[in-house]
Amino acid sequence: MTDAKSFPLNAWYAAAWSHEIEHRLEARTICDKDVVLFRRSDGQVSALEDACWHRLLPLSMGRLQGDEVVCGYHGLVFNAAGRCTYMPAQKTINPSACVRAYPALEKHRLVWIWPGDPALADPAKVPDFHWNDGTEWVGEGGTFYNLQCDYRLVIDNLMDLTHETYVHAGSIGDEAITSSPFDVTHTDTTATVTRWMIGIEPPPFWAKQLGRPGHVDRWQIIYFQAPSIVVGDVGVALTGTGAPQGDRSQGVNGAFLAAITPASEKSCHYFWNFVRTFRTDDEQLTREINKAHVNDGRGVYDQDHVVLESQQKAIDKNPRLPFYNLNIDAGALWARRMIDRMLEREQGNSAHVPSEAAE
Amino acid sequence: MTDAKSFPLNAWYAAAWSHEIEHRLEARTICDKDVVLFRRSDGQVSALEDACWHRLLPLSMGRLQGDEVVCGYHGLVFNAAGRCTYMPAQKTINPSACVRAYPALEKHRLVWIWPGDPALADPAKVPDFHWNDGTEWVGEGGTFYNLQCDYRLVIDNLMDLTHETYVHAGSIGDEAITSSPFDVTHTDTTATVTRWMIGIEPPPFWAKQLGRPGHVDRWQIIYFQAPSIVVGDVGVALTGTGAPQGDRSQGVNGAFLAAITPASEKSCHYFWNFVRTFRTDDEQLTREINKAHVNDGRGVYDQDHVVLESQQKAIDKNPRLPFYNLNIDAGALWARRMIDRMLEREQGNSAHVPSEAAE
Amino acid sequence: MTDAKSFPLNAWYAAAWSHEIEHRLEARTICDKDVVLFRRSDGQVSALEDACWHRLLPLSMGRLQGDEVVCGYHGLVFNAAGRCTYMPAQKTINPSACVRAYPALEKHRLVWIWPGDPALADPAKVPDFHWNDGTEWVGEGGTFYNLQCDYRLVIDNLMDLTHETYVHAGSIGDEAITSSPFDVTHTDTTATVTRWMIGIEPPPFWAKQLGRPGHVDRWQIIYFQAPSIVVGDVGVALTGTGAPQGDRSQGVNGAFLAAITPASEKSCHYFWNFVRTFRTDDEQLTREINKAHVNDGRGVYDQDHVVLESQQKAIDKNPRLPFYNLNIDAGALWARRMIDRMLEREQGNSAHVPSEAAE
Repeated sequence: MTDAKSFPLNAWYAAAWSHEIEHRLEARTICDKDVVLFRRSDGQVSALEDACWHRLLPLSMGRLQGDEVVCGYHGLVFNAAGRCTYMPAQKTINPSACVRAYPALEKHRLVWIWPGDPALADPAKVPDFHWNDGTEWVGEGGTFYNLQCDYRLVIDNLMDLTHETYVHAGSIGDEAITSSPFDVTHTDTTATVTRWMIGIEPPPFWAKQLGRPGHVDRWQIIYFQAPSIVVGDVGVALTGTGAPQGDRSQGVNGAFLAAITPASEKSCHYFWNFVRTFRTDDEQLTREINKAHVNDGRGVYDQDHVVLESQQKAIDKNPRLPFYNLNIDAGALWARRMIDRMLEREQGNSAHVPSEAAE
Repeated sequence: MTDAKSFPLNAWYAAAWSHEIEHRLEARTICDKDVVLFRRSDGQVSALEDACWHRLLPLSMGRLQGDEVVCGYHGLVFNAAGRCTYMPAQKTINPSACVRAYPALEKHRLVWIWPGDPALADPAKVPDFHWNDGTEWVGEGGTFYNLQCDYRLVIDNLMDLTHETYVHAGSIGDEAITSSPFDVTHTDTTATVTRWMIGIEPPPFWAKQLGRPGHVDRWQIIYFQAPSIVVGDVGVALTGTGAPQGDRSQGVNGAFLAAITPASEKSCHYFWNFVRTFRTDDEQLTREINKAHVNDGRGVYDQDHVVLESQQKAIDKNPRLPFYNLNIDAGALWARRMIDRMLEREQGNSAHVPSEAAE
Repeated sequence: MTDAKSFPLNAWYAAAWSHEIEHRLEARTICDKDVVLFRRSDGQVSALEDACWHRLLPLSMGRLQGDEVVCGYHGLVFNAAGRCTYMPAQKTINPSACVRAYPALEKHRLVWIWPGDPALADPAKVPDFHWNDGTEWVGEGGTFYNLQCDYRLVIDNLMDLTHETYVHAGSIGDEAITSSPFDVTHTDTTATVTRWMIGIEPPPFWAKQLGRPGHVDRWQIIYFQAPSIVVGDVGVALTGTGAPQGDRSQGVNGAFLAAITPASEKSCHYFWNFVRTFRTDDEQLTREINKAHVNDGRGVYDQDHVVLESQQKAIDKNPRLPFYNLNIDAGALWARRMIDRMLEREQGNSAHVPSEAAE
């Protein structure tokens, strides 16, 4: 067995929604590492290795005592830096006794942790996820915890929206997506896929949001930030009102937000949101849009869920690699190249687990 | 890991009952290969590899469009020969884009597929299973899909019916089976076990079928066709009426039919039927006999089911190999020798997975 | 894969409570060996390998015929010594046909079996478990069959009772356990941890048993017999009445009894009892104490159960070995050293699986 992983460790990953982390112990598995999260008295978030130094019981099975964690087996106490501050029945504390502390911070309504080398954990490197701040853009998302697939399959899914035509027919899918040309650009750490569909019948979801009859121009501008953030600037405007030229005032504009965090090589946590700049005070609409995405198996993301987990099972079973690619995969390929480059830098060439994509 | 398998690939295997395959996508796993089956507009059956060329999603999650299969993820289309005829958002189709098409045909009320080299798939080699045709012989069978055992354990079971005395006491089991002599003959691809029990009390099932008092002569003539068909010519006739000499007119004659298809090394699909030449118009009897075999855990085959899966678990756990054999295993040993020979021819000696049976 | 195990085979292990073994077939897995137990007509207990010589079906799926076992598949018969006495359809019995017979006997209300070399199975070596005889000491215990952890984790748990403070707060846990000094002694095959807590408030369970107000002296004298018996002499007496000096007449005295039998490397059967010398006629109290230990997830041992299985999962996931140890682990370390020595003698140094404990 090699230690090579399919995910870089030196990166900020979403670990929880801010509102999920209170003054109690909350367990997560991030990049194959068991982590216990809690909010300290000063409001900051801490993240410790979730295994007692002594006999490995998950610390999340213990309890908080002030801002320290008490193991639920023999009562060892660890402070927020992971250092042991109490051992039962002995006065001298082994100075090497500690659990790992992971850099953790909050930004854009999420808690982010850095599973790699703490010396490299620069807060300025937290991905730009400002759409999620809840000010200009409004929405209510959720999380698929432990989605049973490689996090890169979710990125593939989001970077090519032609799948909407087949997976989401009847809501956001439309033949126009497949037939419209698209453009792919990239920087060293981002890739952008831009697709404009001009003068089309709006698909049901967007017709409803726009609330006005007529043909529309539809846009999907998908933006990837390595290693695992995808943001889609999406919407429709009445045809001829200037949206392709920059004037979206006669349209409706939304954004889907995805922070995809590897849990293991074959599972991930998918933090999602769908935010909008129209009817931002309409809480009923907020709930409706949430339900359009996740709704007891009938939402758009529920449909993706089934496809992604089925795809992972097929990959596990099928020795045929690498994937074959189509033109539509251009965006996903750039994303995977960036991930591969991060892995090479981090693990060296020899330890490199190649992305399953190849042309 | 070696590629050696315990089942030959160059053989026709039952994949479904004819009535199960309609104009819709139906998934099966045959010899470790995921296959999607469907009936075309011309009534013929097609079998394709059940994994899209592009990103491996099972094609059985998509839909039929005429006689072509549309992938449920990105809409690639494959014709009945497995060739890709449509790719989303591109005009040029990669000429190498295809999924494997397996030779498939219908005969004797079953759909058969050939998971090996298509060039060798001679329709004339479909096993003789004419008892199942529903003309001279009448009955209604079923399938144990994904029985959790090596298909060869089912063959062992059927090739030696002394197990009836112990597993099926109270219905078809009888001490006479164990105490009566038997004879084993074979050709290059078949083996036959013949056992006559003369002047015995008929066991409950057969007493009921015969419907007349008195001692009987009971026969069990079990016929194996490599690699995985077993047919049993079974019945009873009043003693002294000439059945051993060839006149069965004073008796009742049935046949059990078994087409056992490897799903994986340790699971199989067991297509069974029990047909008869007596009271062939009696549909009530047909249902009764079906129920005597499979009846919510209480039927004869349900009893075998438990034994076979328990045996597989014991084999998995128990490092003691090979099996020890008794005289009663002579028929099963010939069957396994034939399978071994097919494997040797197909895989070469070095790749050969030896049958677990040895004397 | 090596054959080295974490448990010695040349030892008597509890396999069942005496009352569980009647004149019928009862399956157990002991030290990775499947065993079928039954009581013979003469009242003695027999233990055979639970896999037929012929085709490995568990004999426990068959039936008893007098004091012989009939296989449920083909009817082979094995006597209590494991020798085959009948084979179907053949007169000559293969003289090598037999299943393994394990030395088995009853003592101290338990059935013990010796999974190792029968020549070494000296009945005098059955562990001293006289507290369980039901004469001087009274109580009613139970078994956690297939507890999902290495049997040595249970020994660790019992050899250090500071865990009571954290795992069993509110019943038998108390800060005094952690703060009181303790003493560890040992012989070649036993280890003893002695802890006296002088002049303390009794914890709830003991206050109730004592039934008198006032401070108490509490004792916990834990006694290990290699490889897997732990007995705890525990109780409280009113402070100043001489208990530390040997006069326990003003107190209440109980004993917890643990026979921990490896089922596999990562599972075990935990036979437990809690016996007492006070109010021995009070059956209501007997039931109450039983319920205090196991009560649908709320008993003291239920709490240990969760901790032990969680710890095993953490060990499986966490590559960090060996364990780190504290002063409180001194008793457990002696226990593990004795087990290690037994393993070395039995398996030789090269095959030795080291205990996971190290200082």
